[in-house]
Amino acid sequence: MIANNINIKTVKPIKSDIYIYIDMSRLQAEEETQKAFGWAARDSSGILSPFHFTRRVNGDNDITIKILYCGICHSDLHIARNDFGISIYPVVPGHEIVGVVTQVGKKVDRFKVGDKAGVGCLIGSCGKCENCQNYMESYCSKTVYTYTIFYDGGDKNYGGYSDVYVVNEHFAIRFPDNLSLGGGAPLLCAGITVFSPMKYFGLDKAGMHLGVVGLGGLGHLAVKFAKAFGMKVTVISTSPSKQHEAIEQLKADSFIVSHDMKQMEAATGTMNGIIDTVAAVHPLKPLLDLLKTNGKLILVGAQSLEKPLEVPAMPLYGRKLVSGSMAGGVKETQEMIDFAAEHNIEANVEVIPMDYVNKAMDRLAKGAVRYRFVIDIANTL
Amino acid sequence: MIANNINIKTVKPIKSDIYIYIDMSRLQAEEETQKAFGWAARDSSGILSPFHFTRRVNGDNDITIKILYCGICHSDLHIARNDFGISIYPVVPGHEIVGVVTQVGKKVDRFKVGDKAGVGCLIGSCGKCENCQNYMESYCSKTVYTYTIFYDGGDKNYGGYSDVYVVNEHFAIRFPDNLSLGGGAPLLCAGITVFSPMKYFGLDKAGMHLGVVGLGGLGHLAVKFAKAFGMKVTVISTSPSKQHEAIEQLKADSFIVSHDMKQMEAATGTMNGIIDTVAAVHPLKPLLDLLKTNGKLILVGAQSLEKPLEVPAMPLYGRKLVSGSMAGGVKETQEMIDFAAEHNIEANVEVIPMDYVNKAMDRLAKGAVRYRFVIDIANTL
Repeated sequence: MIANNINIKTVKPIKSDIYIYIDMSRLQAEEETQKAFGWAARDSSGILSPFHFTRRVNGDNDITIKILYCGICHSDLHIARNDFGISIYPVVPGHEIVGVVTQVGKKVDRFKVGDKAGVGCLIGSCGKCENCQNYMESYCSKTVYTYTIFYDGGDKNYGGYSDVYVVNEHFAIRFPDNLSLGGGAPLLCAGITVFSPMKYFGLDKAGMHLGVVGLGGLGHLAVKFAKAFGMKVTVISTSPSKQHEAIEQLKADSFIVSHDMKQMEAATGTMNGIIDTVAAVHPLKPLLDLLKTNGKLILVGAQSLEKPLEVPAMPLYGRKLVSGSMAGGVKETQEMIDFAAEHNIEANVEVIPMDYVNKAMDRLAKGAVRYRFVIDIANTL
Repeated sequence: MIANNINIKTVKPIKSDIYIYIDMSRLQAEEETQKAFGWAARDSSGILSPFHFTRRVNGDNDITIKILYCGICHSDLHIARNDFGISIYPVVPGHEIVGVVTQVGKKVDRFKVGDKAGVGCLIGSCGKCENCQNYMESYCSKTVYTYTIFYDGGDKNYGGYSDVYVVNEHFAIRFPDNLSLGGGAPLLCAGITVFSPMKYFGLDKAGMHLGVVGLGGLGHLAVKFAKAFGMKVTVISTSPSKQHEAIEQLKADSFIVSHDMKQMEAATGTMNGIIDTVAAVHPLKPLLDLLKTNGKLILVGAQSLEKPLEVPAMPLYGRKLVSGSMAGGVKETQEMIDFAAEHNIEANVEVIPMDYVNKAMDRLAKGAVRYRFVIDIANTL
């Protein structure tokens, strides 16, 4: 997930004016909160440890979720370690939350106690702007994220590496019974981050040829969705060692080693679109060359927020486009989850106990996970 | 017009192997040609002077056009002066050709003698590739351009600064009787270059807000088409002096001086799309900032073919896109001409005699024309 209203260059030092976000009059008295427990990072070491805190009590429009699983997103690592300079400690990360509904407010009509529910990157937005009206809450300038970064007019948001979550039902996702909770959790961020642009940019048509750059948490889900759409999929990776899993396990149609010029040339002008999941800065021209006329290069890994991307002009005049995308709105996230359940799509996950989280973060930093960690909250917190 | 199969960096010196394009066996004997007369540049001075040459005789699928008017496109200047290093002298420029049909081949069914007809940037393509099949001949890798740059298996193509043109009817455009020939000529390149991306990228809906960067030959037509589509139009220009003509003459809704930060800030996040017609390198971030979520920045002025464009990543994650476009296919060009005739759209032109062409080129190089030169071929050649 990339937060849309953060400009890394202009963000102010944490202590200077961050408290303007806290409306003291709305700080809730103790009797209006409920106890919660999770693991938090306390400083930029990012090391997580047990942490007691409170959440708001269940409001009329809220549901309370007993968390069963929470996925680990790469941005959890960034925020835990304050890589963007915007973290507010203590940080309880986690925005790939699934669990069971234990309480519903009197105005709630989409959930009942006992339902399975999920929470992704967002838990609030203004509800009034053009983006909100068009079900694109993730592009609202007043988005409230699931944990830490912003305040919701009083509450500090702690994420899903914890036992319980309270959320307005509008931002909760119904989890179909046949979707695995552990394998489904990463869909709530990694899944929607690739699904949303594939839908929006029309890269979801049977017979189209999609390139997927990078075979990690996002990339492996892009392959799965693309195959479910009936597309031809080529994985483009720096690691020849990933060819076997791309083709055999994920059922990609072909595999290109990105530094093999012969393979790249052979694929010139063959792709309708590319979902580029790589976070590190890398040249875009070789990817643009793989596209047909009208081809679309979509960046979903935050490859450079400080330095401008270098985009060669000539391919653009071939009506190729460069764009990007962030997560997705609530309605689209629900569609994605329903589609995943229908097509048996889930993330390939390594389920870990809570006390393995610091080790998992270290491995994540090295890219040593196939393809997503999920914390077994229910049994190990 | 930007040629899609030219890579400026890799083009070879003219004399090294250019003759591979000429199939000697297909060079036509004198009895198979007809005499033609025009003005040609003989070297990179770009100075044009009278020139006698031949064209092929009218074939079964051809029409012959007695040229009445020919617009002067900025790329005529580039090719006349060999700015791209690919010109083959003598060069007779001109790809905004309109005239009257004087001869039709026996297989021709769209034209009859006496019809008004136009020829734009293209006179040939492979007809078989995906782009040709999708009416996007301008993106075919075997496009044959209207003059000089490439050979069509034997004939060297001389452009429209001349008395006669022979063209396969597929690549000719029917000119409705109510469309001015002089004012209509520039539509065949400048017009379709802005109309095509507006259509393709969906920037043609009533109520949308379009930014038009640069108020020259392309820009002023973008304003006219956008107003005919029912859009709100803001012209963005470096020249405050253009405000009056933008608002009063072209009926733009508003005007922004691009270096006035206050005006630019006030328009932040208000536009659905921007047609950027500026050829000089200029920063794209301020333009991306003007776009709404999902906004589209479309480059149609060849602002940098050698150096990559610098595109800030953050706006892309707001699902803004950067792309470009070149002219358009034949079918779309016909649609554009019909639309222009229906909505009384024509270019604002300065009609000049043939012997003014060198003066006109000098003025064009300085941007001193409102907004397009058109040569009165019929009366002055």
